[in-house]
Amino acid sequence: MTTTLAALNAASEADFTAALADIYEHSPWVAQAAAARRPFASLAALHAAMTEAVRAAPPDKQQALVKAHPDLAGKAARAGALTADSTNEQASVGLDRLTDDEYARFHRLNDAYQAKFGIPFIVCVRRHSKDSILREFDRRLAHGGPQEFDTALGEIFRIGALRLDGRVSAPDRLAVTGRLSTHVLDVHAGRPAEGIAIELRELSAAAADRVLLRAVTNGDGRTDAPLIGGRPLPIGSYELRFSVAAYYTARGVPQADPPFLDVVPIRFAIAEPEGHYHVPLAMTPWSYSTYRGS
Amino acid sequence: MTTTLAALNAASEADFTAALADIYEHSPWVAQAAAARRPFASLAALHAAMTEAVRAAPPDKQQALVKAHPDLAGKAARAGALTADSTNEQASVGLDRLTDDEYARFHRLNDAYQAKFGIPFIVCVRRHSKDSILREFDRRLAHGGPQEFDTALGEIFRIGALRLDGRVSAPDRLAVTGRLSTHVLDVHAGRPAEGIAIELRELSAAAADRVLLRAVTNGDGRTDAPLIGGRPLPIGSYELRFSVAAYYTARGVPQADPPFLDVVPIRFAIAEPEGHYHVPLAMTPWSYSTYRGS
Amino acid sequence: MTTTLAALNAASEADFTAALADIYEHSPWVAQAAAARRPFASLAALHAAMTEAVRAAPPDKQQALVKAHPDLAGKAARAGALTADSTNEQASVGLDRLTDDEYARFHRLNDAYQAKFGIPFIVCVRRHSKDSILREFDRRLAHGGPQEFDTALGEIFRIGALRLDGRVSAPDRLAVTGRLSTHVLDVHAGRPAEGIAIELRELSAAAADRVLLRAVTNGDGRTDAPLIGGRPLPIGSYELRFSVAAYYTARGVPQADPPFLDVVPIRFAIAEPEGHYHVPLAMTPWSYSTYRGS
Amino acid sequence: MTTTLAALNAASEADFTAALADIYEHSPWVAQAAAARRPFASLAALHAAMTEAVRAAPPDKQQALVKAHPDLAGKAARAGALTADSTNEQASVGLDRLTDDEYARFHRLNDAYQAKFGIPFIVCVRRHSKDSILREFDRRLAHGGPQEFDTALGEIFRIGALRLDGRVSAPDRLAVTGRLSTHVLDVHAGRPAEGIAIELRELSAAAADRVLLRAVTNGDGRTDAPLIGGRPLPIGSYELRFSVAAYYTARGVPQADPPFLDVVPIRFAIAEPEGHYHVPLAMTPWSYSTYRGS
Repeated sequence: MTTTLAALNAASEADFTAALADIYEHSPWVAQAAAARRPFASLAALHAAMTEAVRAAPPDKQQALVKAHPDLAGKAARAGALTADSTNEQASVGLDRLTDDEYARFHRLNDAYQAKFGIPFIVCVRRHSKDSILREFDRRLAHGGPQEFDTALGEIFRIGALRLDGRVSAPDRLAVTGRLSTHVLDVHAGRPAEGIAIELRELSAAAADRVLLRAVTNGDGRTDAPLIGGRPLPIGSYELRFSVAAYYTARGVPQADPPFLDVVPIRFAIAEPEGHYHVPLAMTPWSYSTYRGS
Repeated sequence: MTTTLAALNAASEADFTAALADIYEHSPWVAQAAAARRPFASLAALHAAMTEAVRAAPPDKQQALVKAHPDLAGKAARAGALTADSTNEQASVGLDRLTDDEYARFHRLNDAYQAKFGIPFIVCVRRHSKDSILREFDRRLAHGGPQEFDTALGEIFRIGALRLDGRVSAPDRLAVTGRLSTHVLDVHAGRPAEGIAIELRELSAAAADRVLLRAVTNGDGRTDAPLIGGRPLPIGSYELRFSVAAYYTARGVPQADPPFLDVVPIRFAIAEPEGHYHVPLAMTPWSYSTYRGS
Repeated sequence: MTTTLAALNAASEADFTAALADIYEHSPWVAQAAAARRPFASLAALHAAMTEAVRAAPPDKQQALVKAHPDLAGKAARAGALTADSTNEQASVGLDRLTDDEYARFHRLNDAYQAKFGIPFIVCVRRHSKDSILREFDRRLAHGGPQEFDTALGEIFRIGALRLDGRVSAPDRLAVTGRLSTHVLDVHAGRPAEGIAIELRELSAAAADRVLLRAVTNGDGRTDAPLIGGRPLPIGSYELRFSVAAYYTARGVPQADPPFLDVVPIRFAIAEPEGHYHVPLAMTPWSYSTYRGS
Repeated sequence: MTTTLAALNAASEADFTAALADIYEHSPWVAQAAAARRPFASLAALHAAMTEAVRAAPPDKQQALVKAHPDLAGKAARAGALTADSTNEQASVGLDRLTDDEYARFHRLNDAYQAKFGIPFIVCVRRHSKDSILREFDRRLAHGGPQEFDTALGEIFRIGALRLDGRVSAPDRLAVTGRLSTHVLDVHAGRPAEGIAIELRELSAAAADRVLLRAVTNGDGRTDAPLIGGRPLPIGSYELRFSVAAYYTARGVPQADPPFLDVVPIRFAIAEPEGHYHVPLAMTPWSYSTYRGS
């Protein structure tokens, strides 16, 4: 259920708090603290007020906020006892579809983390793939306690920003989304390549690759919509596959038999979920080049 | 057991014929016919004399030569009843390590071919991968009889050329070998990339990919030996993998985390077994290009 | 002085004709003939009506229209006796700034053309450079008479379309403009190159090169405005110069002394005045690539 | 007049000294000092012995050696009073063909240098272009005296190495030569570009560009000989020009009219006279790329 910034500015404190109660997990007091600072000229100002409320809260209240978060892929998730937001977020990265082995691995990591830090492992899952969450576990288990508590708060602010951006219409948007795009140039003919079949795959060290999208380039050599857009780009490994031989065959361009290039794979990793990744292909039947553009 | 062209030129007819009896499968008469045309100034001239002897032979003798060849991956192979040459040739492409399903598939195709043409399916297997042999079956089963008989003779000449080139030292060599090479340029630093780990894989539509070779580039950005050389390049699909991120990490070049490019795959097909394929990589941590060179 | 399509649709026949009298050189009858076909839903429809009026006119009237055009760089131009439109058009390509030698060359070509075809040489100069006009003279002097009369009419329609598009505001625009743009990628750093100095030159076989524009790339690696836009791209030869060494020096990237690449020139020709030419540069201190995009 | 290392090893001290008297300008004592250290297993050992003799000499002898060198483009050169070696060396970089303005400029710089350091300006001219010598003047005029005396000795050793390598045959060669090469790949057709006309120009800030060489690529897309080889590469700016449009026109490949790419220029600088510079071009009618290879 979305609302507008104007409506929030005009609402009673109770209605304001109710509308934003879920932005911080089980912690309506964050919204309530921000209510007093109205009106907000922008969504960014509202988000800042909420993060400041958390930062200004006494340690035990911050602790309670952190501990209000569920385990990743934990028992609560299996039991269907998560908030609606947490359920959707964990599903977005496939944590609701783990094999028994994967579930056991997350269970062990959650336990190790709880044992060391006394809080649940919190990560803004919409910015991650399953592989990168597992790497985060490893990386953060090496932290000291205070550093890790800060890291957990930082992730909570990212989660809050995404929830807020999704729920409140305002003149501005929070910088929580990225974009992945491509462009295919036929440098054999000196024009954009129209009609190239493209496949985007998420690669995983642990699990099978997953086809995220299939598309065909338009007259400008681009896809009609970004390959990923309007959301954070999950940190992880990807492969773009371009059906080069089929394209040239359809245009009657002579090729070897079998063609020197058939399906061209480009493997790359995304490290900045809010970044713009442009991964073009300039090709002939005998050559190609690519780069990270933006 | 190898010999020299000079020795063959000086040998008795009987010795000459014995030395080259195996060049044409179970058909020493080909060598015998060539003996009369000595001396040979070159291996090419000897090879030409043997192919001319076959072409000049009466139809029934040609038929007998063709039929002297074993089935590919056939019962004789399983029973160990092939000539030494045929055994080695079939093993070179993995026909001695077929799964039961693959064996059954070859069996069916051999039968279909025999039923249509009345001769065994003959192909110069050293010029092929398992996948391309299966495509050859499909392609050649569509031939008419006389066209296919010519095709079979052509393959026999290729087999003969390879056997001859392997067994006789001469001032010249027959044009029966190809070469696959690579070269890695670090265009971030403006010099050849030394120490890049490279892997060459054979890709298969039907079976699992197979690592053919691992190598590391030398100071000139090349491998010390060609990736494939001194033999025909098997027609088929390949992938070269270049460990780009590890290279730049070792040199302290800043990269994203995870690196934008980690292992760069280049997939290509070889169509000309006697060709020179040069597949270079020019790269930075953020871009690369490749082409078919020679 | 511009007007709107709506105003033209609503005007008296006399006012309509007066407003568009100059679209066809000294030939208000073309506008008058189109007036009867009002209202026009689009500028394209108005342009079509005017060209149809010319095509439907009797031969002597067409001849008169053609002969109403001045010589290119002719005596009338030197004497200041051209229409305002012709004066501006001829100036756009530098025909008002010829050396005496160039003037004499145009004079000779005009005379040769008049002698062969009995009409003045007409070309839509806004689509050309001085060099390409000279090539057009050569090309068209080889025509037969009827073919060349058609060519002359075609150029008159192009001139009319450009005049019309410049003088009448409407919901649509005529397809009379092209665009030249660039984009600089720093593939050494994996991001757009901000702050690269760019120079665009027109190259001439006959005269000195001419700097058309200097610009500096913005944060997206592009120029704030197209290099050429909102007008036809003059057919001709161009050079883009990119100050690569200065860019990397400013960023502290190690280079050779002197730098391997300093100012990178890209020379290309424009053949389609209404086309989109995108000429990007992807570079490191040691390498670069470019292509025609769009 | 050349000799062999073996002959030098076997010669009398007087003959040895006479044979190498000119290696160090007007200073046969350097050869004489080295004679006592015979036999030399390699040219490198002989060169090292001569440089050590200079380094071990008392300051006044070193001063005398330095002062024995003529001014660059000085009065002695104009008067024909140089040693044969110096005459050839100065001619190699065009110092014998200066305009009066250039002569005056060198004269001023020589005087400024003499005034500051009390020695003639010495540079191994075979490693330079006229432009880079002028830059060296600027750079070295900023030195302190002892640093500059060392620099002068270093240049004398380079001159000596080049003279020695040119005059004495030995199993080894001194590392005094570089190589500039190119390679043209037609990635439109997937093969080396045979028959591309290439021009190599030396660019000069001060003077007109100079065509150093014209060549046509062979079947491997290379020139039969290196563009520059067997000598040091003069530090300076160069342009390679590749006649791309003519190549594709000859092969019937469709291009725009005029062709998008006609003559492709690649401008680069050489900074390492003893380096290997490989500057390839991979092209289609619509795109190209280049890099510094080796």
